[in-house]
Amino acid sequence: MGGNGDWGGDSSSFVPTVESTCHPPHAAPVTSPRSRPYRWRRRRRRKDEEMSPASARALTVDSLNPKVLALADHLGGTIARKAQCMQKELEKNPSLYPFNEIIYCNLSNPQSLGQQPNKYFREVLALCDYPHLLDRCETSYLFSSDAIAKAREILDLIPGRATGGYSHCQGTEGLRNAIATGIASRDGFPCYKEDIFLTDGAAPPVHMVMHLLIRDEKDGILCPIPSHFLYTNSMVLRGATLVPYHLDESGGWGVSILDLKKQLDGARSEGITVRGLVVVNPGNPTGQVLAGENQCEIVEFCRNEELVLLADEVYQENVYTDEKKFNSFKKIARSMGYGEGDISLISFHSISNGYYGECGSRGGYMEVTGFNSEVRNQVYKVASLSSCSNISGQILMSLVMNPPKVGDESYTSYWEEREDIISSLCHCGEAMVHTFNSLEGMTCSKAEGAMFVFPSVLLPTKAIAAAEAISIKPDVFYALCLLESTGIVVLPGSVFGQVPGKWHFRCTILQQEEKMQRIIYLFQAFHKAFMEEFRD
Amino acid sequence: MGGNGDWGGDSSSFVPTVESTCHPPHAAPVTSPRSRPYRWRRRRRRKDEEMSPASARALTVDSLNPKVLALADHLGGTIARKAQCMQKELEKNPSLYPFNEIIYCNLSNPQSLGQQPNKYFREVLALCDYPHLLDRCETSYLFSSDAIAKAREILDLIPGRATGGYSHCQGTEGLRNAIATGIASRDGFPCYKEDIFLTDGAAPPVHMVMHLLIRDEKDGILCPIPSHFLYTNSMVLRGATLVPYHLDESGGWGVSILDLKKQLDGARSEGITVRGLVVVNPGNPTGQVLAGENQCEIVEFCRNEELVLLADEVYQENVYTDEKKFNSFKKIARSMGYGEGDISLISFHSISNGYYGECGSRGGYMEVTGFNSEVRNQVYKVASLSSCSNISGQILMSLVMNPPKVGDESYTSYWEEREDIISSLCHCGEAMVHTFNSLEGMTCSKAEGAMFVFPSVLLPTKAIAAAEAISIKPDVFYALCLLESTGIVVLPGSVFGQVPGKWHFRCTILQQEEKMQRIIYLFQAFHKAFMEEFRD
Repeated sequence: MGGNGDWGGDSSSFVPTVESTCHPPHAAPVTSPRSRPYRWRRRRRRKDEEMSPASARALTVDSLNPKVLALADHLGGTIARKAQCMQKELEKNPSLYPFNEIIYCNLSNPQSLGQQPNKYFREVLALCDYPHLLDRCETSYLFSSDAIAKAREILDLIPGRATGGYSHCQGTEGLRNAIATGIASRDGFPCYKEDIFLTDGAAPPVHMVMHLLIRDEKDGILCPIPSHFLYTNSMVLRGATLVPYHLDESGGWGVSILDLKKQLDGARSEGITVRGLVVVNPGNPTGQVLAGENQCEIVEFCRNEELVLLADEVYQENVYTDEKKFNSFKKIARSMGYGEGDISLISFHSISNGYYGECGSRGGYMEVTGFNSEVRNQVYKVASLSSCSNISGQILMSLVMNPPKVGDESYTSYWEEREDIISSLCHCGEAMVHTFNSLEGMTCSKAEGAMFVFPSVLLPTKAIAAAEAISIKPDVFYALCLLESTGIVVLPGSVFGQVPGKWHFRCTILQQEEKMQRIIYLFQAFHKAFMEEFRD
Repeated sequence: MGGNGDWGGDSSSFVPTVESTCHPPHAAPVTSPRSRPYRWRRRRRRKDEEMSPASARALTVDSLNPKVLALADHLGGTIARKAQCMQKELEKNPSLYPFNEIIYCNLSNPQSLGQQPNKYFREVLALCDYPHLLDRCETSYLFSSDAIAKAREILDLIPGRATGGYSHCQGTEGLRNAIATGIASRDGFPCYKEDIFLTDGAAPPVHMVMHLLIRDEKDGILCPIPSHFLYTNSMVLRGATLVPYHLDESGGWGVSILDLKKQLDGARSEGITVRGLVVVNPGNPTGQVLAGENQCEIVEFCRNEELVLLADEVYQENVYTDEKKFNSFKKIARSMGYGEGDISLISFHSISNGYYGECGSRGGYMEVTGFNSEVRNQVYKVASLSSCSNISGQILMSLVMNPPKVGDESYTSYWEEREDIISSLCHCGEAMVHTFNSLEGMTCSKAEGAMFVFPSVLLPTKAIAAAEAISIKPDVFYALCLLESTGIVVLPGSVFGQVPGKWHFRCTILQQEEKMQRIIYLFQAFHKAFMEEFRD
């Protein structure tokens, strides 16, 4: 198994324990990562809780909204839960496992993995938070001149310079205007501030749109498989019918219009009213960038079939191939000569993604085009339910769409920071893809965009039988074995959905050079040992 | 009409125009404040939009979720819309109306009305946004020493000091711990970080709870009338049955247990499963602080009837009477000897309220007690749908619950800022209540808390007839006449609900001394003229 000290003998025999020892053995089944640990603590401090007659009578799990019960675990399920417990165990006893750290390849959360925030963004935020700084001479020594100028500009855009006031429920008009300008220069087509709704990340606008589109279980949405939880969970919560279409793995995870049409007709023949089509580009978990021609086909399909096109474009800045570039679906539609009246299109963006990964600030927007006024009034009404999105997120979103320009003091450092991160992601993606394609029974498409690779693993029947023996899915079994042998956390394909009989995992490409080399080494050694043990 | 130049002859005859002239006369009925202005602009730039066949086919208002169509206008309806248009008109033509400014007594948005943010809060936020400042010597000249220490402390609570990373979906553990400590010292009873869910303001957690409790239209929630839109709209969106109970105006807007019981039994006799009871204390729009005994009755009622008590306590810091103090419902329940097992209680708080009014940062929490582990797991799952709330809001919430202490550099200034604002609100409230009670046919309960007074107006039958003649409600008619005569914006009682045949309006108490004197003068003159014109 190689001479690496992290490889103890026990790791060469794969008998994963699904439930971690840091959970009480008698705990009931749970559906959320941190629920059991604190249930445990709670029992210690309040003996009456578990069997509490009153609270049990007032509300039991059986009397909750069944749509909530039907939600999938949003945070990665068994694997993520187990990794968190193993981390706690390692903190107590560093020699408990044949490795000394948990390596999180499941989180698209760059700053939690050590990536530093963009300096210019944070300078502007700090100045907007505490504008008093703008009146002090020391500030010119502490902040770059363009950050100071931008902060003044942004404060002037906010009525009364009141960053502590509710904004217009679509977001501060001046910031929406700046974002619309950024979108227009990105696409080469006009964009209007009236079409922009600023939001607390990408989840709230998706939930808003589902609220608008879904009446009951007879309404459906075409959603890619594999795809991340946001869309499927939002549909489940509103009782919508998921109309799945499979991304074409052999075609680099492109969208097959034939399959789209087949799924749509199938759903319609069952009496489902299909309201919209979700497309995620660049893809999560699949990491592809759609070809322009494929996007044209999708636009044509939505127009002909009268579907609202829901375009998740949150990874638009994360493209790692020279052969393809990101095109917004709006740019594609307009390039095809389709205007407001031809296609209903909603594009989602977020500051959690992009190379800067400002996940904690919860900023995002949706651009809403191709709806008549009456419908737009209803979109507005739903948006107003939460008053407005947070102002710091609104400011960051406007900065993302309007980065420093030539001549600005931060121009060089900003683009250097960006280039460093993007090229590191690109390099990590290439190395991962090369590695996975070199492993027995594994194939992995190029990492063209986003932050992930999604290799498929041809699992031996013996491994599948071993998984069934402990009643878990084969891909979960593989990921658990990997975790217990190496400390590497990846998410099994079944979390995202996959073609029956095929098995995958999602691995992020966020690791720095040294860590990446280590991951590659551990993966190679693990996979070799795994295949040796289970080879048919 | 007195010698005030703002009083033109035209204001002595009340013929309000419901639709503002800044809207195109041919505009279709709308349901949201800003929708018409931009519809208008949009028509100018895209002639095809209104009659767009494709976009109309793809999605028409008739094919939207009827629960969305049923939502009430969240932002104050006709009056707020008209005020915004009049403001735009005044900017173009300052002599258009018999006044030169719109006076917004409808907005509970202190900083948008000129209130400055709390210095200490913003110092800490700025330092957390741009931690690089903590390494610079200039910082000690720009920031107070306790803000610097607090920022270091908070950054140490955030794993990897990554303010840009997603937090635990309930919020950063260390910040929840600080908030739990603050709640425990407020109540004198234990509070646990596991019970705290940090949120983007108070709306998201209310929507979460409705998701959990509401299965279909046979599920109901007891909700006060009058009450603000959040609860009613959240119920409408999930198809819940609103089970209204009327606050007792003659008893200072207290809760009548007799009425609660009557409404509950009535709903049950119609086959409604009543899941919970909403109580807002201090009250919005009614401004009352509930008496401790009344709170005990409510706790007892919820316990006996097995209802989840949903306690909106966002105005807990805004109390203006020495006769009453704020008691959290959890403190009341624990004081009665009721523990985890006895009552299911969710308390909502927010940084948008309180004297500091940090509405734009979208921070809040819910404290969830009295549920068994299985139910809590589902609460967690719903909370995880939006990943986490914004970190700045989480930080502010922790500061709100842990203000500067004796000996801290900011201690004096912090409490002086607080005292100034609270006493100004108190003074404004007293003056408003005194004024309204001195006007013909008006009665107004004490402004004990929150940011509002909610006087009732005995409208002459002639005024009611005049309202009916233009097909608007009498209280909307009164508010429109007030707006067109004085520029003062108040919200009619019908926006919040009221006893049939009684008419009210909600007026904020956020105005500074000088502005308040002017509002009082304008109100007195307007009301006198109004009653003279419509006296029976």
